[in-house]
This record gives sequence, structure tokens and C-alpha cells, in this order.
Amino acid sequence: MDSSLPSTKDLTSDNITANVTAINSKCKDLRMKFLLECLVTHLHDFARETRLTTSEWEAAIKFLTEVGQTCTEVRQEFILLSDVLGLSLLVDSIDHPKLPNATEGTVLGPFHTHEAENVQHGSSISADKDGEEMLVFGTIKDTKGNPIPDVKVDVWEADSKGFYDVQRADHDGPDGRGVVHSDENGEFFFTGIVPPCYPIPHDGPVGKLLQKLGRHPYRPSHFHFMFEKAGYDHLITALYRRGDPYESSDAVFGVKSSLVVDIGIVSEVEGLAEKCNAAPSKRLMKHDFVLLTDEESKVLRYQKALEALQKQDGTKLEIVNGLLVPHS
Amino acid sequence: MDSSLPSTKDLTSDNITANVTAINSKCKDLRMKFLLECLVTHLHDFARETRLTTSEWEAAIKFLTEVGQTCTEVRQEFILLSDVLGLSLLVDSIDHPKLPNATEGTVLGPFHTHEAENVQHGSSISADKDGEEMLVFGTIKDTKGNPIPDVKVDVWEADSKGFYDVQRADHDGPDGRGVVHSDENGEFFFTGIVPPCYPIPHDGPVGKLLQKLGRHPYRPSHFHFMFEKAGYDHLITALYRRGDPYESSDAVFGVKSSLVVDIGIVSEVEGLAEKCNAAPSKRLMKHDFVLLTDEESKVLRYQKALEALQKQDGTKLEIVNGLLVPHS
Repeated sequence: MDSSLPSTKDLTSDNITANVTAINSKCKDLRMKFLLECLVTHLHDFARETRLTTSEWEAAIKFLTEVGQTCTEVRQEFILLSDVLGLSLLVDSIDHPKLPNATEGTVLGPFHTHEAENVQHGSSISADKDGEEMLVFGTIKDTKGNPIPDVKVDVWEADSKGFYDVQRADHDGPDGRGVVHSDENGEFFFTGIVPPCYPIPHDGPVGKLLQKLGRHPYRPSHFHFMFEKAGYDHLITALYRRGDPYESSDAVFGVKSSLVVDIGIVSEVEGLAEKCNAAPSKRLMKHDFVLLTDEESKVLRYQKALEALQKQDGTKLEIVNGLLVPHS
Repeated sequence: MDSSLPSTKDLTSDNITANVTAINSKCKDLRMKFLLECLVTHLHDFARETRLTTSEWEAAIKFLTEVGQTCTEVRQEFILLSDVLGLSLLVDSIDHPKLPNATEGTVLGPFHTHEAENVQHGSSISADKDGEEMLVFGTIKDTKGNPIPDVKVDVWEADSKGFYDVQRADHDGPDGRGVVHSDENGEFFFTGIVPPCYPIPHDGPVGKLLQKLGRHPYRPSHFHFMFEKAGYDHLITALYRRGDPYESSDAVFGVKSSLVVDIGIVSEVEGLAEKCNAAPSKRLMKHDFVLLTDEESKVLRYQKALEALQKQDGTKLEIVNGLLVPHS
């Protein structure tokens, strides 16, 4: 036995938190030590404040086990759980603070895959014959207004019935997803379909939870985008269709006003039909995206970490590589 | 859409908690509403205080998924996780407050099953030929000292190699577990084996977590007991062997001084060899258990709920059936 560790005998509701934290404090990874200390404190406070009963604890164990066992290679029920509890949106907003003119982020959701293939400008990412074809046209700039070429743009959307490719029984390859790259003018375009609103998978434990809470499982019509280029902050976002019945009640809290767009037609934008070789009557989703540089993001993150540190016991914490850790 | 619900658009790190709580507040089960409000608040505060990063969130999703997928019919990794974080012991101490002279509770652990068969007084619950036979003799009384007859005593222990029956590849029925009933004097006895210390299953995600935290996975030698009788508070407890190398560093925080016992031999207790028809040289674990009545437990639980209510915003909460709930 390591004699520098406290005894773990005779723990009560009053002393157990300090004791578990002391035992965990031998962790050599300071960031992990801090995460565990915070986690154990909140977990225990939750049990103490609610006076959690043994049968409620048993129900929670059963629920979490079911959530884990519902996960497959193509279904991530824990991400869904995080989404419906607002944690996913919160973590994105914490980890990717934005300057006022930069494009806001939103939830990744559980349906991003690494299967998407490269598509040429103008090509279609969707094989869905029931979908209404839609040109997606985007520009990518930095916060000073300079176009950013060669950004990897990973896009994905549900089919016209509200299912992602991986949710379909006949799934045998990517559909409704693709990777395009911005050109020298920071522009990209491709053809998708007008995305529908749809319920998140609600035949599992998370769906049952929503039902018990009296909540609906719907997400408004949206299209996912992920932007990646060395030197720029990774942006996970989506565009939402204005006027969708679920625009103000997204089950996973992802909608932001700045990401709500009209879906018009190509002819409404002068010269676009010619530029993209698209029918003037084709539906159109168009947006100007603005990325932060890594440097801008780092400064913002540091400022926010400093604010968080000042709200807590600053004598115990410091900022290392932009992360809060206990003083070593 | 239900127009009485707040809009969920434009959520930020500052407003998301109140908003998620408002959406969840339509829950008709008031206790569940309260649990969710507390849970979401602590979960979000944890993310905000640590400034949780997207990659840490991803690691947590992966970890929880692995914990869920490690669970089988005979392995409960989420209970192990709860155990090593001190939550299991905490919930037991919250839900089963004790009078000073009553037997303390401890962790259930992940190895209780409903397979155990009834055993007669004196019979053996163990088929382990490598184990050292041990007489287990107990008395059960109420807090006033009156014996309690006909209590169902559910007992389980690891074999001499430190494994419960369900952990063995050749498991095909209960071993090292049984159900006995106290007689008219509140006494019960049966034969088990001297329990070994052993590591909790540490080849899964919880084992890896302990390793990262620099913690060992061992539990001191112990024997599990569960007491059940209508009119009495359900008691889950265990007896720990005095002098075990892990007596003061149990990986799951279960040891209490009042539950630590000497393992002696039968002849040390006058008349016991005859009474139990046991060899005088046989090892002996003996203990006097004291149960609370349901009524005593209810009063204690109400007092504790009242204390918890007074620590929080008492104008928002009330106690219904001994549980904290929001004012309806």
C-alpha cells in the first residue's frame, strides 16, 4: 500500500467526495485529475441534492447499459443522449468560441461518417430519386474577408424520408454525403436534395426518455457542414431551413438564427445558373461561411479559460496549453 | 408545437441550462423532473467549469459506449464504474440512513444474482474444493434487541481464486451463494469458505480508468449479505476480514470499521460447535446484525430529506413520500 494515500474506510455521505478525490489525485495526467475531481464532485452533489434512491440508481444503471448496448457501428446512442441533454451544443460553444462575424458552430450529431467520397464541383452527393434536387453554393472567407482556398468541406444530409445512409437496411456505401474542396476564390458547390425535417432515432432508450419528458424527437430540416484546413479552427456547423415547423423546438438544441437560411431557387442569384451550370429553377441553398484562424481561436479560448479560472478558485488552477489544470 | 414552451433557438453556454430545464419541465413525473433538472445543471456546470473540449467529450462518449458494451448477463461494468467513483456507497448511505446501533450498509457490487438456492442451516453454499471451509453464524435483532425470525438472508462470496460463479467459464448454476432464513431466535448459520481478497474485473474500460488514475483494483476479503423481511428496511451489507492488506484501500470504498471482523475458529465460541454440529477447528465468521424497521427508516429518511431541502431553495421543493420533488 502507498502510505501517502488516505484510508478509504468509514466513508459517509459527508466525507466520501473528498476521499475519492484524494485517491484519484495520484493521477499523473493533471488535466485528467482535474476532470475527475470536477466529475466526482458534481456526481456526488447530484446524488446528495436529490437524495437519490437505490431504485433510482438501479434505473440509471439499467438506462445507461441500454444506451451503450443500443450503439452499433452505425448508431451512436450516447451522442444522441448528449444531444438531447444539451451537452453537445454546450461543448461545441465552449470549445469553439467565435468572433462576432465568424460562422457559428452547432451539434455534430451521431451521423457523421468517414465514408464520404470526394465530389467535383457541381456533382451530386445524393442518389435519392424521391428527393428534390438542390444546388448548395458556399463561399469561405476569413474574418478579414479574404477567400480561403482548398478548405476540405465534409457535408452530409438525410434522404427525403429523413434517414441517413447508415440508417438504411440496404446501406452499402456513402449516399447523401461527400467531400468538396473550395477553389481559389474560396467557393464550392455541389448538388444535394432539399433536406426534410425528421425525428432522431427514437425507438431506443433516448427516445423513451424524451417520451417520459413529454418532448418530441424532431429536428428541423438541416444540412451538415464540417470545414477543415490547417491553420484554421475546425468548424462543425449546419444550415437550417427557415420556416420549418421545428425551427424553434429542435430536439437537440442546434438551431441558431445566423444559421437559418431561405431555400430559394438558382435564378434568384444573378449569374449563378451559368457559373454552376445549373437549371435556373433548381432549388438553392447558399451561404457565406467565415472561419477563424487557429491563432484567433487560441486567443479566444485563452480568454474564456481565464474567465472560467477567475470564477473558480484561481489559486488552485492554472492554464496550460489553453486548458484548465490544477497547479502542478 | 406547444406554444407554452420556450424557443430553443440561439442557445449559448450561458442560457442553455435554463432552456433545457424549461423544455424538460413538461415532464408529468415530478420526481423525474427534479432529477433531470439537477442532472442537467450539474452536467452543464461540469462542462463549463472544466471548459470541456470536443476531443475530451468524444473520449467520454467512447468510454461510456465501451462500458455499456462490456456489460453482459453476468458482468455489470456500469455498476463497477459507479463503485469506483464512490457513487454506489454514497447512494446506499443516502437511501439507508441508520440509527447508531443498526448494522451499516455497504456496496451491493456487480455480482449479486437471483440464482441462489435455499440452503438449510449448516449446509454448505460452496463447492470450491480449494477453499478453506468456514462456518458463518449470525444473529438478527431489531434496534431494541428483540430477535427477528424468518428474515430472508441472501449471501454470496467469491471462490478461493477470487472469482464469483458467474465469472467462471464453466458456470452452469449457483455456487458460493445461497439463501438462508433466520430461525425463531433470529439466528442463522451455514458453511462457506474463507473469502479471499481479489481484484474487481479490470480487463475492461473501468480497469483502464483505474490504471490511468494510478489506482489498484483490489477489494479486501469480504462476504456479502442481503437481509429482507416485510416491515424492515432492506439491508445490503458485507463483512470484511480484519488485517486484509486492502482493508484501508478498498477500490470501491465499501469498508466500514463496524463491518470488519476477525475470522477465528469455531471453538472460540462456547457451545457453537455443538449447536452447529461443526468441527471445533473450523474457521468461523460470526456477527450480530441489527435491522431498522421500515418505520424507523422512514422517519430517518424524512429527517434527512428535510435537511437536504433546507440546504437548497426550500420554496421550490417539497417532500412527497419521503422524496424531494418540486412544488406541484
